[in-house]
Amino acid sequence: MKVRGAPAIGITAAYGLYLAFQRLEDISSEGFLDILNEKIDYLNSARPTAVNLQWALESVKTELEGNWDFDAKTIKNTLLDIATKIHEDDHRRCESISEYGQKVLNEQSHILTHCNTGALATGGIGTALGIIYKAHITGKEIDVFATESRPVLQGARLTVWELMNSKIPVTLICDSASAWLMKQQKVDVVIVGADRVAADGSTANKIGTYNLALLANYHNVPFYIAAPLSTFDFSLTNGNDIPIEYRGSNEIRNIYNKYPITLPDVNCWNPAFDITPSDLISGIITEKGIVCPPYDLNIKKMLTNRVSIF
Amino acid sequence: MKVRGAPAIGITAAYGLYLAFQRLEDISSEGFLDILNEKIDYLNSARPTAVNLQWALESVKTELEGNWDFDAKTIKNTLLDIATKIHEDDHRRCESISEYGQKVLNEQSHILTHCNTGALATGGIGTALGIIYKAHITGKEIDVFATESRPVLQGARLTVWELMNSKIPVTLICDSASAWLMKQQKVDVVIVGADRVAADGSTANKIGTYNLALLANYHNVPFYIAAPLSTFDFSLTNGNDIPIEYRGSNEIRNIYNKYPITLPDVNCWNPAFDITPSDLISGIITEKGIVCPPYDLNIKKMLTNRVSIF
Repeated sequence: MKVRGAPAIGITAAYGLYLAFQRLEDISSEGFLDILNEKIDYLNSARPTAVNLQWALESVKTELEGNWDFDAKTIKNTLLDIATKIHEDDHRRCESISEYGQKVLNEQSHILTHCNTGALATGGIGTALGIIYKAHITGKEIDVFATESRPVLQGARLTVWELMNSKIPVTLICDSASAWLMKQQKVDVVIVGADRVAADGSTANKIGTYNLALLANYHNVPFYIAAPLSTFDFSLTNGNDIPIEYRGSNEIRNIYNKYPITLPDVNCWNPAFDITPSDLISGIITEKGIVCPPYDLNIKKMLTNRVSIF
Repeated sequence: MKVRGAPAIGITAAYGLYLAFQRLEDISSEGFLDILNEKIDYLNSARPTAVNLQWALESVKTELEGNWDFDAKTIKNTLLDIATKIHEDDHRRCESISEYGQKVLNEQSHILTHCNTGALATGGIGTALGIIYKAHITGKEIDVFATESRPVLQGARLTVWELMNSKIPVTLICDSASAWLMKQQKVDVVIVGADRVAADGSTANKIGTYNLALLANYHNVPFYIAAPLSTFDFSLTNGNDIPIEYRGSNEIRNIYNKYPITLPDVNCWNPAFDITPSDLISGIITEKGIVCPPYDLNIKKMLTNRVSIF
């Protein structure tokens, strides 16, 4: 939890693998592969939901296999090169997502976002927040409603900080106020990130995302996911198969693990993520373009062409 | 905010009026009426949404007019008598609501509730929480999901405390997790309180109630309001006319006015209540029975048959 945000988790894992081999001096083909797999398993076990973690580690492995050399120094350099490439690659993906995302905004837009999806969560300017940055930079008149995002308060702590730093008008709301906010017609569009997108377009993201998608749907507010293809898990035909991380009660009981807000022994139900079915999603903004329903068909199309579907 | 919970606010105002005249020694008809109206206006200005405040103060005034006596001691005694009567009356209403509320529960029920509506919010065992107490006492197998109820955390602080004290199984959830909880089919019924019910059945209650009503509706979970008739405002034909209290940014920025969770100068949107339209409400549990749709008709019917509360 020192690193969060699906793309940032992937990038950090790649750098982590490089660091794990920092002290490598001598190497044999067999020994190295064992240690590599062990380190990958260890890093993979950190978080179950964001697929970028697996994706980045698999990418390192594949890339390494293409540059095989049992010289310790070369391996270390290669690992650093690959991590840097993954990092820079995410930077470009953010740029592209932010560009495509402009299509879902008007010249004036009131945007609601959830959790944190900016520079603190990615290798670039962000996904959902990247779109917001780009809109601001290019002169659109936007303002943002940021949810607190209990229990870890990524919205209150990180998104508010990023937006205020960039002088983008931001208003913080409690998670439970979103429905009333939409009812007042104060929201033109909802844009959030993703931790894993299944092949049918259903999306795991920070707990509360499914709630927002339902509310947006009811109030006829467009609801968009912004995520790089490294967040897609094409092996899952259905979002219901995405593993959801359930975290401990203390995360709810004590803010910052410090300030108690309830009784110390109350049982808490603390899913870190939820799954939004694709029928509640207006579109998924990727670095290759915006994927619209029907998702199973259009995601396949995007994969086959590997070019923008728009 | 030392006192909260619509019925408790009304009762406290009645006692407050008695306390305001504690030092009364000499009295003239004219002077007394002026001071009485001034004190009533002052107490009325404390909170705009819970109509129980106005109702209790009006009740005192009406009752006093029927027992007119310009002797300071008699007036003081009368004020205390009326306040006590309002208090005891609410105690009985809670009992009756709790009794009628059993009809919406099965022998085994997973109940979701919001904010705090128990002994800490009323003059008796509570409204929504009273129903839960009664179910537990009469041997129903129930467990409760309590929302945190940001920003003031009445669920985490008060409801959890009340239920744990009574050994009723309770699980605390973040407000944003309600949708995912319902999706997992872990909720059989939602029961919440009210701060004001309009003549059409639409209901103002703690921020997040409208959110829960929408979610319950989508997941086919029955959604009930539990409230005494002192919470009904028959002068309002429409819920949209209920005044909503908006509170300051600091209440969100700092937990308990102490622990910062965001930047000190971020703007916050902080409605203390929201309004749930009656078409999302399965029924309103009152001390006279459960009112079902069509509310405008059925509330009128209940009023016609109404017997005096004193």
